[in-house]
Amino acid sequence: MAAEPRERPGVRGAVSRRRLLIGGAVAAGGVAAGGAVAVTLTDRAATPQAGEPLGTAGEPLATAGEPRTTAGEPRTTAGEPLATIPAGQVVPFHGDHQAGVATPPQAHAAFLAFTLMPSTTREGLARLLKLLTDDARRLTQGRPALADTEPGLAELPGNLTVTFGLGPGAMRAAALPRLRPLPRFTIDRLQERWSGGDLLVQLCCDDPVTLAHAQRMIVKDTRSFAKLAWVQKGFRQATQRPGLTQRNLMGQLDGTVNPQPGTPGFDRAVWIGDGPLRGGTMLVLRRIRMHLDRWDAADSAAKEFTVGRRLDTGAPLTGTHEHDEPDYGRLTELGFPVIADEAHIRRAHVADPGLRMLRRAYNYDDGPDDIGLLFAAYQADVETQFTAVQRRLAEVDLLNEWTTPVGSAVFYLPPGCGEGGWIGERLLT
Amino acid sequence: MAAEPRERPGVRGAVSRRRLLIGGAVAAGGVAAGGAVAVTLTDRAATPQAGEPLGTAGEPLATAGEPRTTAGEPRTTAGEPLATIPAGQVVPFHGDHQAGVATPPQAHAAFLAFTLMPSTTREGLARLLKLLTDDARRLTQGRPALADTEPGLAELPGNLTVTFGLGPGAMRAAALPRLRPLPRFTIDRLQERWSGGDLLVQLCCDDPVTLAHAQRMIVKDTRSFAKLAWVQKGFRQATQRPGLTQRNLMGQLDGTVNPQPGTPGFDRAVWIGDGPLRGGTMLVLRRIRMHLDRWDAADSAAKEFTVGRRLDTGAPLTGTHEHDEPDYGRLTELGFPVIADEAHIRRAHVADPGLRMLRRAYNYDDGPDDIGLLFAAYQADVETQFTAVQRRLAEVDLLNEWTTPVGSAVFYLPPGCGEGGWIGERLLT
Repeated sequence: MAAEPRERPGVRGAVSRRRLLIGGAVAAGGVAAGGAVAVTLTDRAATPQAGEPLGTAGEPLATAGEPRTTAGEPRTTAGEPLATIPAGQVVPFHGDHQAGVATPPQAHAAFLAFTLMPSTTREGLARLLKLLTDDARRLTQGRPALADTEPGLAELPGNLTVTFGLGPGAMRAAALPRLRPLPRFTIDRLQERWSGGDLLVQLCCDDPVTLAHAQRMIVKDTRSFAKLAWVQKGFRQATQRPGLTQRNLMGQLDGTVNPQPGTPGFDRAVWIGDGPLRGGTMLVLRRIRMHLDRWDAADSAAKEFTVGRRLDTGAPLTGTHEHDEPDYGRLTELGFPVIADEAHIRRAHVADPGLRMLRRAYNYDDGPDDIGLLFAAYQADVETQFTAVQRRLAEVDLLNEWTTPVGSAVFYLPPGCGEGGWIGERLLT
Repeated sequence: MAAEPRERPGVRGAVSRRRLLIGGAVAAGGVAAGGAVAVTLTDRAATPQAGEPLGTAGEPLATAGEPRTTAGEPRTTAGEPLATIPAGQVVPFHGDHQAGVATPPQAHAAFLAFTLMPSTTREGLARLLKLLTDDARRLTQGRPALADTEPGLAELPGNLTVTFGLGPGAMRAAALPRLRPLPRFTIDRLQERWSGGDLLVQLCCDDPVTLAHAQRMIVKDTRSFAKLAWVQKGFRQATQRPGLTQRNLMGQLDGTVNPQPGTPGFDRAVWIGDGPLRGGTMLVLRRIRMHLDRWDAADSAAKEFTVGRRLDTGAPLTGTHEHDEPDYGRLTELGFPVIADEAHIRRAHVADPGLRMLRRAYNYDDGPDDIGLLFAAYQADVETQFTAVQRRLAEVDLLNEWTTPVGSAVFYLPPGCGEGGWIGERLLT
């Protein structure tokens, strides 16, 4: 499969894409002229930079676009879809922070972790990040990667974001500040195949084909530097339901209390404020398996008691609407708390907005025995944010009955970069 | 994991969903009143029945809906997506033919194959199909399945279709006409894990969460009758690009010449016209692995020579637009055919529209070493349609250099049903 192509008429080995990249333009730090493909941007595609507040709630960057009329348009394939997102949806790549963190979540995600070659130096890591930054800069804007072998697959960006992170091994290899590992939690049943990693590439996209192509370009470009350790793919609801939080595969509205870019405390909660890592953020990625057969055996009252919210509306048990503030002090007639002491929302509650994690949850379904949630949480400080909450949850949380963390990883996500720069530049030069 | 839930306050075992279904309403053939959830349908959701022609080219059943305005709407979650499909998109379940065949392909698909319990009788198969028909009838219309454990996940149908098929084993068990197996092709490297199966359930949906939920409901309801043999999940471009055929992961426009519902020859090509199987169709599902690293090593000219079409526009090498008719007789200055004798489009060409397969191709990406295409082809007669073409392709097709069939299955898809009926009713009663 990895063999050289046999010689045949019209089939010649093309210039090696990797050689071209590593030896040439990218290593020199410039943006080489590639075979760019024009892409039509909608008005709404002029989105704020990743580092800018997105308004009250990640205001949708793109709407449904003009209605599709049938008259006069070619309609010649049975492949014409029933419902699609508009073409030309672009999330800006450049900014103070990397896109894909404060960016509203796209429908599909792939989290890729790589193990660096043992010989990797600080300079090698820098070269790899230059190369991958160039890929990301192009692909997110609907342009093929340098020497892209399938340029047509880059034409529909679908809000693609590509976000890079460094794990403990990479930080060590590059003589950067040490990342503290997470403590062991009693509820964890971690598997190596879903844990750890030196380099993270997080791909998020509303179009699964664009995502698959971008993933392949990224994997190809890491080959001389690193080995793919794991890929975790997830999805969210692709259907429009304005103002309502998404449901996870347990049927819960998931993410009701999530910090909003531009609101008080957000920047403090998410972005590292000072020191050598300033402008970046810490990602904790947990693979949380759901025991859905057992969950199914519980009735609605039990489920709502467990979560502390209604299943249908997502309202706290003390309220009527999803975003009503839970009243943790309210008691039943018998004098018990309406929201139980062991209820998930009480255990997970963080009063200070500046300490809340920004979450980006994706469902996964890797067969009937492996269904769950990829819980991605971004924060300025893992110890006081993720770990503080997770200690409480590991201690008591009714939801533990139906969920088990089976994967865990921590990465430092460097700040964003400008047009001439690359992700990790300030750290590695 | 499958253990009974421990007793705890508020957690009681709910009524067994399966018991409710098998013992009660469905076995009696009626539709029991379920806890239906209201769903808002768009105007465009009033679509033709699956059996009716969809217009020239599967005219889009649903457009982008009303643009999303931000004023006055709650915008309180960072989970607000950038681009979504509208809510309430429904494909009718009832009709002369099952939906999911002539229906324009949705963005996501899961093909599930089950192995029937050895003891399965004709009556048992009928009972299973009644049960599954009830699930499909509800879920496709945005209503929870009977005793649905996560009713909230049924609210956004996302054009869900659920299509049923019977493999050779099921046909034998139910004393139905025998399905002839495919011949062995020299290019095949079939793996059992992707091949065969007694019962097929094809789920197609524009929303991956809705699909995952429907899949789980279906899998749960088959447990007493059958064992899950394999699941193959695929995806297509979710981005709107009216009038253009989709690209596969090799970058080719895939499906340019695909029969259109309502055009001459379509019904003859797809639906079985007479005999006990009339009104149904035959599905051949092939898992075709792509050797993308080798494909990447070929240059554009080689790729276009292989396919017989331009990579960027999909136009035949003798034309300028995707839908230009290929001129198989045209010669180069040197006297060679412009579209080579071994080119894929020449080898796959079928002149008689009444003999063309209806294709529904989904990409799959199950890790860097297992990327390819789920090639689903529907036809009235496998021998004269799929097999005739495949013999030619197996003999000579430049594309064989870069693709290998690793899975293969054949199913008979019974006709559709009306409101009181169930899929397979005429055959099994």
